[in-house]
Amino acid sequence: MHQTLIDRHQNTLQQALKACSTRECWSGFVESPSSKIHGEELPLAAKEWFDSQLGTAFQLDQPGEIGRIGVEVSPYTLEPLGIDYPKIDVDVVCQAAALAMQDFRQLSPDARAALCIEMLRVLEGRLFENTHATMHTAGQTFMMGFVGSGANALDRGLEALAYAYKALTDIPDRARWSKGFGKTEMVLDKRYHYVPRGIALVICCATFPAWNAYPAIMANLMTGNPVVLKPHPNGILPMAMTVQSLRQVLSDNGLDPNMITLAADTREQPIAGEFLKRSDVAIVDFTGSQRYGSWLEQNVHDKLVYTETSGVNSIVIESADDYPGMVSAIAHSLCLFSAQMCTTPQNLRVASEGIATADGKVSVAQFCDDLRAAIDSKVADGRAAANLCGALQAQASIDVLERLTESASELGELVRPYQAYAHPDFPAARTATPLVIHASNNQSPILREEHFAPVAFVIEDENSELSLSRAAADAGECGAIATHVYSRHPEFLRNAEAQFVDAGASFSCNLSGPMALNYGAAYSDLHVTGLNPAGNACLADLGFVSQRFRIVQCRWLEGSYS
Amino acid sequence: MHQTLIDRHQNTLQQALKACSTRECWSGFVESPSSKIHGEELPLAAKEWFDSQLGTAFQLDQPGEIGRIGVEVSPYTLEPLGIDYPKIDVDVVCQAAALAMQDFRQLSPDARAALCIEMLRVLEGRLFENTHATMHTAGQTFMMGFVGSGANALDRGLEALAYAYKALTDIPDRARWSKGFGKTEMVLDKRYHYVPRGIALVICCATFPAWNAYPAIMANLMTGNPVVLKPHPNGILPMAMTVQSLRQVLSDNGLDPNMITLAADTREQPIAGEFLKRSDVAIVDFTGSQRYGSWLEQNVHDKLVYTETSGVNSIVIESADDYPGMVSAIAHSLCLFSAQMCTTPQNLRVASEGIATADGKVSVAQFCDDLRAAIDSKVADGRAAANLCGALQAQASIDVLERLTESASELGELVRPYQAYAHPDFPAARTATPLVIHASNNQSPILREEHFAPVAFVIEDENSELSLSRAAADAGECGAIATHVYSRHPEFLRNAEAQFVDAGASFSCNLSGPMALNYGAAYSDLHVTGLNPAGNACLADLGFVSQRFRIVQCRWLEGSYS
Repeated sequence: MHQTLIDRHQNTLQQALKACSTRECWSGFVESPSSKIHGEELPLAAKEWFDSQLGTAFQLDQPGEIGRIGVEVSPYTLEPLGIDYPKIDVDVVCQAAALAMQDFRQLSPDARAALCIEMLRVLEGRLFENTHATMHTAGQTFMMGFVGSGANALDRGLEALAYAYKALTDIPDRARWSKGFGKTEMVLDKRYHYVPRGIALVICCATFPAWNAYPAIMANLMTGNPVVLKPHPNGILPMAMTVQSLRQVLSDNGLDPNMITLAADTREQPIAGEFLKRSDVAIVDFTGSQRYGSWLEQNVHDKLVYTETSGVNSIVIESADDYPGMVSAIAHSLCLFSAQMCTTPQNLRVASEGIATADGKVSVAQFCDDLRAAIDSKVADGRAAANLCGALQAQASIDVLERLTESASELGELVRPYQAYAHPDFPAARTATPLVIHASNNQSPILREEHFAPVAFVIEDENSELSLSRAAADAGECGAIATHVYSRHPEFLRNAEAQFVDAGASFSCNLSGPMALNYGAAYSDLHVTGLNPAGNACLADLGFVSQRFRIVQCRWLEGSYS
Repeated sequence: MHQTLIDRHQNTLQQALKACSTRECWSGFVESPSSKIHGEELPLAAKEWFDSQLGTAFQLDQPGEIGRIGVEVSPYTLEPLGIDYPKIDVDVVCQAAALAMQDFRQLSPDARAALCIEMLRVLEGRLFENTHATMHTAGQTFMMGFVGSGANALDRGLEALAYAYKALTDIPDRARWSKGFGKTEMVLDKRYHYVPRGIALVICCATFPAWNAYPAIMANLMTGNPVVLKPHPNGILPMAMTVQSLRQVLSDNGLDPNMITLAADTREQPIAGEFLKRSDVAIVDFTGSQRYGSWLEQNVHDKLVYTETSGVNSIVIESADDYPGMVSAIAHSLCLFSAQMCTTPQNLRVASEGIATADGKVSVAQFCDDLRAAIDSKVADGRAAANLCGALQAQASIDVLERLTESASELGELVRPYQAYAHPDFPAARTATPLVIHASNNQSPILREEHFAPVAFVIEDENSELSLSRAAADAGECGAIATHVYSRHPEFLRNAEAQFVDAGASFSCNLSGPMALNYGAAYSDLHVTGLNPAGNACLADLGFVSQRFRIVQCRWLEGSYS
C-alpha cells in the first residue's frame, strides 16, 4: 500500500527537493482559482458546503471529546458562524497521540513523505472550501484565501516536508563497518533509528493560519511527532478542516488518525497552558504575537520551541529610479489584506531633504501626497477595495487605528485618515483602508512598536544614513520580517546590505512591479531569520527540522542481527 | 592564498563527507605512535618539549591578559606542573572575539573548511606533545593520549567540520528566481548570507578534553562563531596548546587570531559564569558532569546550549555464546583508563538463575569470580596495568571508591577490592584497579547514580526481563551513553532493541574481541542521543551544527546588484 503512494508522489518530492536546493521558482500546487482550471461546479459546491456548515456541529470523531466549543464570528458578516467543535480532555488526547506515535515512527522516510504529500494533495482538493472558511474567520479576500492560504501555504508545507526528508535521510538507516584491530578484523552491522521527540503543539494565528501551520504540521509528522493543532479561537474552521482531512488520510492508509488532533478553545478558557505543563509535549510551534512568542522562548525550557511572530518592518527610501512604481508598490502593500500580514511594512523612512528621482527631488510632503493618492486610487472602487483589503479580523485593529489617529498630532500630522470602505458583497464587513501619518517626530516610541492594523508612518529622518541605521536598529531590537530599501546608489545599497545583515534582517532592494512586496516564495525565500525578536525559527531550513528527531544507534556483531 | 589551502585539503573534506554519509570506517589521521611511521626523533623531541614546559609561563599572546593563573597537578607524579597561563579580562577577550568574527564570517564555506582542516593538521603535527600534556593533566596512558586524544579526537573534529560544511552549503549563496505575474516576468537575484550567532563558550572536561572540544571548536569556527575555550582547571595545558596552534594558523593565513582564545581558571575562582551572563555569548558547548550540564540546559535560555555529560551505563547479560570473550571484554572495559570515560559500563545486570552459555549455566557467583579473575589477569603485571589503566585524574575518584567499599555489605558483597597498582615509570602515580561489588540488593539508589571511579556492580535481578527493563529505565531516567546486551536469543535482542530505542539509549549486542566496548568511531557511531539525561547534543549530526548560524537573505531586482 505504501509503495503505491511512494511511487505516486515520488516526482513531487524530488521536484521539491530540487527547488529547495536551487532556490528557483517552483510550485507543487495550482495557484489560480480560475474556472478554466477548476470548472464551474467545484467553486459552487464549496460555497454550498460552507453555507451548510453554518450553525452545525463540526464532526471530527477524535478521542477525548467532553463537550462542544466555538464562538467564531465572521469579519464579513459580523455574525457568529454558529459552528461548534469538540472541547477536549487534554489527558485523553495526549495519551491517544502518544500511542499513535508508536506505530507511525516505524514508517520509513519515504513512506512518511508519500503520506504527507498525499495529505497536502487532499487539502489541495478542498481549496475552495478552505477559501470560504478562511475568509469568514480571518477576513482574507477570496483570492488570498485561495492562493495565499492555499497553494502558497501548501508549498510552504511541502518545503518543510522536503527539509525533514533531507534531514531524515542524511544518514542511512543501516551500515556495515569494519576495522582492523591488530590482526583481527572487527565487522559491525549498525542500525540507526530515527526517534521522534514527542507530542508537538502547533499554535496558529488568527489571520493566516495555514501558511505557518502546514509547515509545522509537515515538519512534525515527517519526523514522527504527533500534532495537536491549537487554532486561534476565531480561526478554528480552516484548521478543523485540516485536521479532519489529515485524519482521513491516516485512516485510509491504515494508520492511527490520532497523529493529528484539534484542540479548540476560547479566549475565556485558553487551553495551550495545559499542554505546556505536560512532559509528553516535546515541541511547540507558535505563530502569533511577539509578546507570547518571547514568553514561550524564555519560559518553556523543557521543550523545543519554534516561533514566528512579528516586528516593525521598515522601508528606507533614499532615492528611486522608478518613483511612481515604488509609490504604487508601497501603497499596494499597505492595503493588501488590510496590513494584517507579518510582512506588511509600517515605517517608511525618508530624509528631510526628500527623495532623489529621475525627475528631480520629491519633497517629503509631496511623497505623503503621492502615497495618499496612490492608496486612494486603489481603494476608490468598492469592488477593487474588497479584492485588495478584505476585512479586519478583529475589532482590536479598529481600536488601534482610533488610538493612533488621536496620536497623529503628537507624531506630526495626519496624511490620510483610515476609513471603512463599503464592501459590495458584505455590507456589514469590518473594513478599513490605511491610516497614514507623517511622523516628523522621529523619536516617538510609538514608531518602535508593531501596530496590528492598516497604518503606516512616513518618518522624516535628518538624513538617509540615519534612516538606514534606525531601520536596522529597529529590526535588530524590535524584530523585522520584511525590510525594503529604495536607492539609485550602489554604495548606499551595499551599506544597507551590511547593516541589515548585521541586524539579522532579510531585505529587498528597489522592488516594484506586479509582485507584492509581501510575497515570500516557498523553496526560495527564507521567512524569518531567527536573529531578531520576530521569531527564532525559519521557514524553512535544516534548523527548522533537524532537532525534531534524534538518532538511536544499535551495533551488532556481523551477521548477528535477525 | 585561501585557494591553495582549499586545494590542499579538498580530498580530506570529500572523504570525510563520504564517511559521514556511508558510516563506513575511515580516519583522516594517523592512529599509531609507532616509530616506523614517525621515526625516533619526533617522540623524543616531544618529551623534551614537555619537560621544558614545566615550571614556565605558557605564552599565548592573546588580548586581555591581566595576570597569570594555573595550578595543574600531574596524576602521574602528584607534583604541580608549575605552568601558568593568562588570566583574562572577560570583557576584553569578548570584545576581541566579536571583532574577529566580523572578518571571519566573510569567508566562504570552502575557505572555512580548508582553514579548519589546516588547523587539525597542525594539531596532528603536535600529537606527541599533546600526548604528554594529556597524560600529565588527565591521567591518560601514552597510547590513549596519542590515539584517543589524538587521531580519534581529530576525526571527531573533522566529522563536525564536515557536518557544518554540509549545513552551510545546503543552500547556494545566490540564486536567480523568476516568476510570471500576469504578463510580467519578475526576475530577482537573491543572495543568502550565513550569519554566525556570536561567541561560543566551549567548556571542557578534565579527563578527555580534546575528544569533545575539537568537535565543538570545529562546529563553531565553521559556522563563523569565535570560540572561547574554558578548560578544566586541571586540564589547561592540552587546551592551551590547541589555542596556541589554532591562533597561529589564523595568523599565518592573515586572519584575526582572536577567533579562538583561552579562558583558564581555577576551582576557587571559576570564570564560566562571567560568560554566561553576557549577551554577546550566544553558544555554550559543555562536556562534564550531568549536574552542571542539566543546570545549563534548564537555566541558560538566551543561548544555544549543547551538552555531553554522563549517565549510568548498563550491560544486560542474559546469555552468552562466547562467555570467556564477553568476560574479558567487560573486564577490559572496566580497567580501561580506570573507568574515567563516559562510555565505561557500571551496572552489570544478570538474572539470579545465572547466565546460559555454550557450556551450560554459569551462576552469578561464578560470573563474579570469573570477572574478578579476568580483571586480576589484566592488571597483574605493573606494565600491563599501566598501559591499560593509566592514572586517576582526581583524588575524588579514590574517595568514591572508599565510600563504595564501605557500602558493599549494604549492597551485597565485595567481589574485588580496588587497589593501587605500582606504575613502573611513575611510582607516585594515583592508581586504582577496579572495585567490583555483587549487588544482590538490586533496589539500592546507589545503583542509579554514576560513580566517577573504577567501580562495577554485578546486579542480580529476579530475571533477565527485569534486567532489561531496569537497564532501559535507568538509561531513560538517569542517562546512558553506551549500553550493551549479551544474549544468544534473537527475540531477547529484538526486545532489547525496542526497549533501548524507547529509552533513547544507543546500545551494542554481543560485543567481544579486540575492539574496546568503549570505542566510538567518528563518522559512524553517534555519540549521545540527546534523548536521555546524558546530554542534549550528539556527535555528530545535523542538529549539532544547523542552528549555529542563520541565513539572512537579500532580494535584488535582476541585474541591480553591483
